[in-house]
Amino acid sequence: MEGFYSNFHLKALAKVELANQVKQSFWLITRCFSFTETSLPPGGVLLCKIGKTAIMLAISNDEEEEALFSRARKNGYLLCKGRVGSMKAEKVISSIETAGIREGMLDGSYRQEHALYHAVLEALRGICRGDIGLGDYNRTVGLTFSIVIGLKDERSVSEENWIAVGLYGTIGAPKKGHEHEVMGLGISHI
Amino acid sequence: MEGFYSNFHLKALAKVELANQVKQSFWLITRCFSFTETSLPPGGVLLCKIGKTAIMLAISNDEEEEALFSRARKNGYLLCKGRVGSMKAEKVISSIETAGIREGMLDGSYRQEHALYHAVLEALRGICRGDIGLGDYNRTVGLTFSIVIGLKDERSVSEENWIAVGLYGTIGAPKKGHEHEVMGLGISHI
Amino acid sequence: MEGFYSNFHLKALAKVELANQVKQSFWLITRCFSFTETSLPPGGVLLCKIGKTAIMLAISNDEEEEALFSRARKNGYLLCKGRVGSMKAEKVISSIETAGIREGMLDGSYRQEHALYHAVLEALRGICRGDIGLGDYNRTVGLTFSIVIGLKDERSVSEENWIAVGLYGTIGAPKKGHEHEVMGLGISHI
Amino acid sequence: MEGFYSNFHLKALAKVELANQVKQSFWLITRCFSFTETSLPPGGVLLCKIGKTAIMLAISNDEEEEALFSRARKNGYLLCKGRVGSMKAEKVISSIETAGIREGMLDGSYRQEHALYHAVLEALRGICRGDIGLGDYNRTVGLTFSIVIGLKDERSVSEENWIAVGLYGTIGAPKKGHEHEVMGLGISHI
Amino acid sequence: MEGFYSNFHLKALAKVELANQVKQSFWLITRCFSFTETSLPPGGVLLCKIGKTAIMLAISNDEEEEALFSRARKNGYLLCKGRVGSMKAEKVISSIETAGIREGMLDGSYRQEHALYHAVLEALRGICRGDIGLGDYNRTVGLTFSIVIGLKDERSVSEENWIAVGLYGTIGAPKKGHEHEVMGLGISHI
Amino acid sequence: MEGFYSNFHLKALAKVELANQVKQSFWLITRCFSFTETSLPPGGVLLCKIGKTAIMLAISNDEEEEALFSRARKNGYLLCKGRVGSMKAEKVISSIETAGIREGMLDGSYRQEHALYHAVLEALRGICRGDIGLGDYNRTVGLTFSIVIGLKDERSVSEENWIAVGLYGTIGAPKKGHEHEVMGLGISHI
Repeated sequence: MEGFYSNFHLKALAKVELANQVKQSFWLITRCFSFTETSLPPGGVLLCKIGKTAIMLAISNDEEEEALFSRARKNGYLLCKGRVGSMKAEKVISSIETAGIREGMLDGSYRQEHALYHAVLEALRGICRGDIGLGDYNRTVGLTFSIVIGLKDERSVSEENWIAVGLYGTIGAPKKGHEHEVMGLGISHI
Repeated sequence: MEGFYSNFHLKALAKVELANQVKQSFWLITRCFSFTETSLPPGGVLLCKIGKTAIMLAISNDEEEEALFSRARKNGYLLCKGRVGSMKAEKVISSIETAGIREGMLDGSYRQEHALYHAVLEALRGICRGDIGLGDYNRTVGLTFSIVIGLKDERSVSEENWIAVGLYGTIGAPKKGHEHEVMGLGISHI
Repeated sequence: MEGFYSNFHLKALAKVELANQVKQSFWLITRCFSFTETSLPPGGVLLCKIGKTAIMLAISNDEEEEALFSRARKNGYLLCKGRVGSMKAEKVISSIETAGIREGMLDGSYRQEHALYHAVLEALRGICRGDIGLGDYNRTVGLTFSIVIGLKDERSVSEENWIAVGLYGTIGAPKKGHEHEVMGLGISHI
Repeated sequence: MEGFYSNFHLKALAKVELANQVKQSFWLITRCFSFTETSLPPGGVLLCKIGKTAIMLAISNDEEEEALFSRARKNGYLLCKGRVGSMKAEKVISSIETAGIREGMLDGSYRQEHALYHAVLEALRGICRGDIGLGDYNRTVGLTFSIVIGLKDERSVSEENWIAVGLYGTIGAPKKGHEHEVMGLGISHI
Repeated sequence: MEGFYSNFHLKALAKVELANQVKQSFWLITRCFSFTETSLPPGGVLLCKIGKTAIMLAISNDEEEEALFSRARKNGYLLCKGRVGSMKAEKVISSIETAGIREGMLDGSYRQEHALYHAVLEALRGICRGDIGLGDYNRTVGLTFSIVIGLKDERSVSEENWIAVGLYGTIGAPKKGHEHEVMGLGISHI
Repeated sequence: MEGFYSNFHLKALAKVELANQVKQSFWLITRCFSFTETSLPPGGVLLCKIGKTAIMLAISNDEEEEALFSRARKNGYLLCKGRVGSMKAEKVISSIETAGIREGMLDGSYRQEHALYHAVLEALRGICRGDIGLGDYNRTVGLTFSIVIGLKDERSVSEENWIAVGLYGTIGAPKKGHEHEVMGLGISHI
């Protein structure tokens, strides 16, 4: 099981050279629906909130990331993390969509992409604090994004999956040091 | 110094019975501007991002809260945390403003309240994902809020303070279990 | 089969006295997913666009409604229609949600209500042409709403259901004759 | 009269080769103000709602279009229909403006273009469900638009004209099949 | 002519006791369309921009108001001025509509009220800087409003009238001194 | 003192050839904080509202500008005025930011630019009447902007400075004469 983990992790780390600046560290354990059919992991449910998981993954540094992976793994979450920087909102959107599809988190259907798209738009509204706009507002973002698929929370073990997108980074003028932090979270049924 | 910490913490815990449902656990160490005049604390700057501090404080449970306090204390942040639930956006806004003023984080001037107000509005846009509206949209929120005043980040040690407001909780229909998580972050100069 | 149709239709007509001013004429034939498992109906697919079906149902008068029912029935759509008038956006939202649940179109889960809620919000943005607001804008609406569940379109026969909400009526000052028509359409995966 | 109709219809069909991808089938009968000066047509007013006329024209296929023309003709509406597809909102706006002017529906004054512009913006808010944005949101539209000038409704026979713009089509990712339907309606005095 | 002016002015000054706190100083000279049929006034067009006229009327004190009246009178503008303070956006809207109708600036038709309504909404967006909301945002306004009907500008002497609404005053927390200035301008064809 | 004034004024007038079409007439007297330390100027405070000052500077012609300068000078305001025309919102934003920095109104810190940026965004919402968008909405602006730094109003003499941005000009289709006036005002603490 641990080897299975490492393999996937290495696969992801090898993808650093992506054209659209998306670096993904991806972790696949078991899909969430199998979680409800099996017994709880030893030690029980440690962190089973899809939104909090997405937020913590987005704000985590490398060290915290490892701890998050082993916690989320016990709850059967499917996770993906990457980075994107742009003055164009569509680049942020398409990078996250590409990451979700390439890492096999989505099944390729329009339904699932529609769910991811709306989660991304909602997270972007947190980033832009209102209307979505980057270059038009003379501002640029540098963001870490997370995608999480799984249980909405510990009370919804019998339900189907939800999807959460977390965004964390900086927004500001295209000038070094002239930026401050931003955060966004979007959640949709999938 | 540790006793000083405990005293303030106990004072805050005693405020649970507030009329407007705001429970604050408040922590005052030293104001940030004194930080730049003294040497760095032993062990250096551990967490010096005002936005990340506000996010982590908002999503923290009791146990994580303690760890956050001792970390933020080393960086001279002024912190406040509370809870508010309402179908009226103005209740959320006024509860956070009241908390910031009552705990002595602001000096009572309109300037500082204006800064806090705009940080709250920005955080609320992340919560509402666009236009600010709760009851009008037939939805209610249960939120934990954090207010943080201090350095924008570790690169801005020579600058004046900023203010960050973090919001984390749930939004949904006024029916048990029919809600999902939301997050918002607003930052302003103060 | 025809009698089955009449029975359901009569049941709906008897519901005129609903407290919240929602008059529903409801029609259940077969759920859409059964459509894909059987052969096409004699005469083929006449109208298989979920959005167009929702729009036409919302703008239809009594006569046109009958024709729509028999067409949509051939494509296995699940339909519901009602009326609501208010100066409060939340009344419009909750009336449509209540109609969808009471008529058995949804299974009562939060997932499905979340899908309906977002479809309603999107349709309301068409009605309000931007920010959602009625009384705050000193205006009132009188709307016919439709809810349709089934195939997104004829090319998606192998997929799962979508939900569409159509809204049509008038918006204006609370003064007779001082209003004009409005239309909105919202679509979500379910 | 029937020949007059055919001539105009043919003229419109010959305009398919327009540079900006706008195909218009245009129908001029009599301007609406002449309707109030003459007696009602045999059979009375069949459909005299400017918004419903614009919606039905936008969603109609070729067959339904013919029936609509003969109905609207009895009520003296001035109609225009076209198609536009783009990832740029300004292309959608300018195509509809160009169609309205080229077909002689407007008198070329800024007043009338201002009325058309605002009707188009309102219809686009229904399409975008909130803020107007296509490419920035990484989405594209394929739309049929209608412009209708005439009586607001059958109760306003003594009043001047209004203008309605109907939009119907699909929105989605720039990938075949990854789109769903959208609808918008905008109405202004002219 | 001067007496005519005084009479109307006195009539308006006597209206201070209006229930909804609207104090109007109203000035009728000649309607703008008569301006284009006669020769230019002696001394020529001094100020013929409908928007600038509305702005200056809204920000003027009593002394400046007199000078504005005599200038605008030469250009045939129809003017109205009042005050309104509220935490409810609909109160602001209805006060301005009431003022426009009561002072005889509008002919009572829905067309003209629709034009005024949209000009008011646009001006309010300048006041709220985005989404229209006062009490929901825990803020209150104290506003002076102006309504101006006449030529759009000096180049449009052969055209019909436009309507402009100017708003100027303060927005802030419901606490004395905790407010700052705001301004809004809305313009529509009428 | 008078010579000091003239020198700065001439310096500004010489900057007409700026690449980004920004013509600034800049006036530096004494910074506002020195005003509170000295006695009131002879004749007292004539105009001490930062918002009204910004509005009047933006709508003033050359003649009115002179009168404004001598009034504002008595109240210690720091003023800057320029012009910008574009179909791109970011050009409007960056031109105003550039003007504020180049004329020495800001100290170059991110804090002060953040304050100016938010004041500009708020003023732009008045111009766009809602979502910020120019080219996307197929419209262009020609604007005069003003930046004012100083006392919020005469009651706040003991407080620190605020910043106001006034915008006035025209918005419309990219066709001569097809535009109308717009106005916006944004205010922030600095």
